[in-house]
Amino acid sequence: MYELLDQIHSPEDLRNLSKKQLPQLAQELRDFIVESVSQTGGHFASNLGCVELTVALHYVFNTPYDRLVWDVGHQTYPHKILTGRKDQMHTMRQRHGLAGFPKREESEFDTFGVGHSSTSISAAQGMAEGAKLAGEDRKAIAIIGDGAMTAGMAFEALNNAGCKDTDLLVILNDNDMSISPNVGALNTYLAKLMSGKFYAAFKNTTGKVLDVAPPLKEFARKSEEHVKGFFTPSTLFEAFGFNYIGPIDGHDLDALIPTLQNIRSLKGPQFLHIVTKKGQGYKLAEKDPVAYHGVSKFDPANGLSSGKSGGKQTYTQVFSDWLCDMAAQDEKLVGITPAMREGSGLVAFEQAYPDRYFDVGIAEQHALTFAAGLACEGRKPVVAIYSTFLQRAYDQLIHDIALQDLDVTLAIDRAGLVGADGPTHAGAFDLSFMRCIPGISILAPSNEAECRQMLTTAYLHKGTTAVRYPRGTGPGVEAAKTLEPMEWGKAEQLRTGEKVAILAFGSMVTPAKEAAETLNATLVNMRFIKPLDIDMVNQIALTHTHIVTIEENVVAGGAGSAVLEALVANGHCKDVLMLGLPDQYVEHGDHAKLLAECGLDAQGILTSIQKRLATQKD
Amino acid sequence: MYELLDQIHSPEDLRNLSKKQLPQLAQELRDFIVESVSQTGGHFASNLGCVELTVALHYVFNTPYDRLVWDVGHQTYPHKILTGRKDQMHTMRQRHGLAGFPKREESEFDTFGVGHSSTSISAAQGMAEGAKLAGEDRKAIAIIGDGAMTAGMAFEALNNAGCKDTDLLVILNDNDMSISPNVGALNTYLAKLMSGKFYAAFKNTTGKVLDVAPPLKEFARKSEEHVKGFFTPSTLFEAFGFNYIGPIDGHDLDALIPTLQNIRSLKGPQFLHIVTKKGQGYKLAEKDPVAYHGVSKFDPANGLSSGKSGGKQTYTQVFSDWLCDMAAQDEKLVGITPAMREGSGLVAFEQAYPDRYFDVGIAEQHALTFAAGLACEGRKPVVAIYSTFLQRAYDQLIHDIALQDLDVTLAIDRAGLVGADGPTHAGAFDLSFMRCIPGISILAPSNEAECRQMLTTAYLHKGTTAVRYPRGTGPGVEAAKTLEPMEWGKAEQLRTGEKVAILAFGSMVTPAKEAAETLNATLVNMRFIKPLDIDMVNQIALTHTHIVTIEENVVAGGAGSAVLEALVANGHCKDVLMLGLPDQYVEHGDHAKLLAECGLDAQGILTSIQKRLATQKD
Repeated sequence: MYELLDQIHSPEDLRNLSKKQLPQLAQELRDFIVESVSQTGGHFASNLGCVELTVALHYVFNTPYDRLVWDVGHQTYPHKILTGRKDQMHTMRQRHGLAGFPKREESEFDTFGVGHSSTSISAAQGMAEGAKLAGEDRKAIAIIGDGAMTAGMAFEALNNAGCKDTDLLVILNDNDMSISPNVGALNTYLAKLMSGKFYAAFKNTTGKVLDVAPPLKEFARKSEEHVKGFFTPSTLFEAFGFNYIGPIDGHDLDALIPTLQNIRSLKGPQFLHIVTKKGQGYKLAEKDPVAYHGVSKFDPANGLSSGKSGGKQTYTQVFSDWLCDMAAQDEKLVGITPAMREGSGLVAFEQAYPDRYFDVGIAEQHALTFAAGLACEGRKPVVAIYSTFLQRAYDQLIHDIALQDLDVTLAIDRAGLVGADGPTHAGAFDLSFMRCIPGISILAPSNEAECRQMLTTAYLHKGTTAVRYPRGTGPGVEAAKTLEPMEWGKAEQLRTGEKVAILAFGSMVTPAKEAAETLNATLVNMRFIKPLDIDMVNQIALTHTHIVTIEENVVAGGAGSAVLEALVANGHCKDVLMLGLPDQYVEHGDHAKLLAECGLDAQGILTSIQKRLATQKD
Repeated sequence: MYELLDQIHSPEDLRNLSKKQLPQLAQELRDFIVESVSQTGGHFASNLGCVELTVALHYVFNTPYDRLVWDVGHQTYPHKILTGRKDQMHTMRQRHGLAGFPKREESEFDTFGVGHSSTSISAAQGMAEGAKLAGEDRKAIAIIGDGAMTAGMAFEALNNAGCKDTDLLVILNDNDMSISPNVGALNTYLAKLMSGKFYAAFKNTTGKVLDVAPPLKEFARKSEEHVKGFFTPSTLFEAFGFNYIGPIDGHDLDALIPTLQNIRSLKGPQFLHIVTKKGQGYKLAEKDPVAYHGVSKFDPANGLSSGKSGGKQTYTQVFSDWLCDMAAQDEKLVGITPAMREGSGLVAFEQAYPDRYFDVGIAEQHALTFAAGLACEGRKPVVAIYSTFLQRAYDQLIHDIALQDLDVTLAIDRAGLVGADGPTHAGAFDLSFMRCIPGISILAPSNEAECRQMLTTAYLHKGTTAVRYPRGTGPGVEAAKTLEPMEWGKAEQLRTGEKVAILAFGSMVTPAKEAAETLNATLVNMRFIKPLDIDMVNQIALTHTHIVTIEENVVAGGAGSAVLEALVANGHCKDVLMLGLPDQYVEHGDHAKLLAECGLDAQGILTSIQKRLATQKD
């Protein structure tokens, strides 16, 4: 069906093709991606944008001996297909199937596991230094998007790599996008580079010429200048000590291949700027790369179905509505997102309150400290952030916000398992890493109505607060239209039973209901992880023989651990069963099925409790 | 005694001086700092370098209405002296005395609490946006050193601020130093700017002139160009959208004051590059700014006493010796520090193994992912990092190292309280935030000999490991010269008693000994926080009625919490007393006294246990 692609079982096969065959291969690769992703869902537009680059890299470099380090990694479907995984593409992002990101266990061609952005230059530099120490002449190549370049860690790496003579190639895949359209000065700057304005100006004043695909001679000259240290810094990247080459058309194999071949022979840190288009070759994705960034199954002939799934409201939508309503009531509210306008539900807020909306790009550290600065001036920042990305701003949360007792609200989405994106995106740790921070309050809603109410409660509470809610939909309890807070620090007893008390947190309240009924157990929706409702814990301890804690967070140091600490602090000795995510990384797959595998569905919870009760009777 | 300085009780008084009086004031301020810091100890060289800048800023800007945001904050002694705190300078860094860093509770002139580097631009931008939303025309000024500029978060902030029209002034205080001499391409770049080479080249090709103290007209012209967007990016900072001015001499009030006055009237993001000398005006500090960065009391006439204090070995020295010895044995060992060569004890290692030594600058995120890349190539990285700074690289630890099960060893110094540096530098959370990470192993030594042995153990253990040890000296148990590991995952029972068992972690083993003797209690040096010695916990639980856990970490989610989890997982219901740092920020002061205040000295431990036992008898 795919004349050339079907013959490619490894990059070795690819390298046996003639250059003339490559455009056809690229076309087949693109067609295959459209066919495959439309059947499995997954990342789409970014992969279409990377087809020619991937072909060119594996064609020119000796992979896997040479190391390709893909940033973020959601653009590696072409890479996976060309490195022997074409026949598994139908299992993409499914349990035991291919991961949506590079993964070291999956293939020797996946040199570095990713998922979060902006790690590639650091990792590739580590590999380059490692090769140098080992006396090996392998190449290390980081491929990073312009969105990922806004994160500070990419600059930390540039700053370090640029002052070394280590062979490292950084390829900036510039498509003017992260997931949302990009923001920031760098973006403007890159646009200037691309528009040629900058080079035109530069050419006029210095007579230096940089053509679109500079010939070898020009490379050599620039490289020589670089080594001698005589050059005048001209681009941002040259200021960091890199030899800057580009911009070139990242969809033109006739430009890419000779350029990469030339660069291969250069010494020291090289920076290649290529320009691509997200969704290239699939018109609907080219037009709307945001919608086509990550897709569900769709009909390639008609594109994404326009109608909303029509189902239940997601927690993200609950947050989105709440944010607009609270903003209408309080003009001091400001909303901040690190490049997740769509994912975190800030589209409507931006439209309604553009002056109070701040998308800071992929820059979680800045997002939190910027929020701290706003809070110092009496604004009331709401930072919408995924649990997994909050890990990027942990110090800022402690040091710049909580330590100063600043009035900032964190709306933490994707807390718990996330399904197809796998362990790199799971929000499995936030209760543990936040609970130890003095001065912070942490709430977790058990349903949509409570989510809205908790956001209001947290927002109105003076100090640093966090509401953490899961990915996707909840049990379907419609949120009120009002902005009523709930009582601070109080748990809600949902059922009164005997002997066994289940203390459930957030998303685990609903699946715990069945077990509570079956066992005639008491069920408490704990609501607050910090401050914990100590009165409730005391009362439960005094009236029950067995306590069960359940949370969608690792057990170590999580909410159940808070219950234990409260129990012993108050002198209770109780049998406690702690249910939660295991002390291991949960792989990708269907969210509900993964929870079941972890024993966190209704049946699993019941079984665990029954098993424990049986043991206790022995 | 200080003719002018004694009259300055607030910046208002300063602004009533004539410009002609300012050099004298600066001289008096410098003299006072030498006098004061030589008596109290504290940060020294950086404060001497900031005298004229501080005078000029408070003279030109309407503080505190205009916001000065100092980065890192160890250079704010002149600021504290000029803002009404001169008479408290003798209490510097002492309990209930002045903090060594800006602190919002201490003064309305301290607009943002700091301690960690590179937060100032983010915070100041937040303040600037806040002022804009409030319709106030206050100015926000971030003052950041060149060392702090290497951290990614500074670039995240530049990237965001530079694309806005918000009035923000960033002052780069360029002294070619962080604490250790600076590294990285940015440093080279700044040196080029300073040397004038760059400007000379630029001038020749464009005819544009930038004098050392540019006249108002030039400012106006540049500003106008900037607003119109016609300018050609010339410096790195202009590429980020800032109007770059400088470099100017940061010790020349005749340059500083008119420059700042001019900038005050400019709109949009401004970047002023000033050049200063750490230790300026005190010859010995100018010569050796590293030694004079932070000092103990000294005689101003003779400088620091050259002899080592001669006392016990610090944990840092134990690490330093171990690193060199292990490097001699294993050529795969590489050592990485984020700008803490001296503080973390890598001076000897750098001298002996320059090729295997990597100082990445203030760039903790990069440090860890760079280590991950090295580990991918079979190198064995040891990352030496302070507990508090590891918070900056939390996501990288989870996502890039532990998740990939990479063989990296973290040597975590300054775990627990740190004394005079206060809560911004305390390592109070690492056990909690690391314990939840699957795949990581965590060890804590109770003395120097064990520290060395644990470093060997962790290093030889395949996978992600962390050894956390406190600031300063331990009980004085001399480390062996050998490189022998200890048994993996095994606690050490130090004393066998009755009824009460004390499970102590790391630095708390020694102070627990007295209580164990007095109470005839069992004492266990737990050694491993993760994996916890479950056999030991089981055995203790079966043979004792009361368990006490002690750690120099917050109780929430810490090592004691791991013991609780193990107890309930194994079906034990026990009375447990958890001792550790409180759920609040512990202020600056003497380390030992602070521990005593937290009840973590020998007497405090005994008292807490006795109190608990008394309650249990009721």
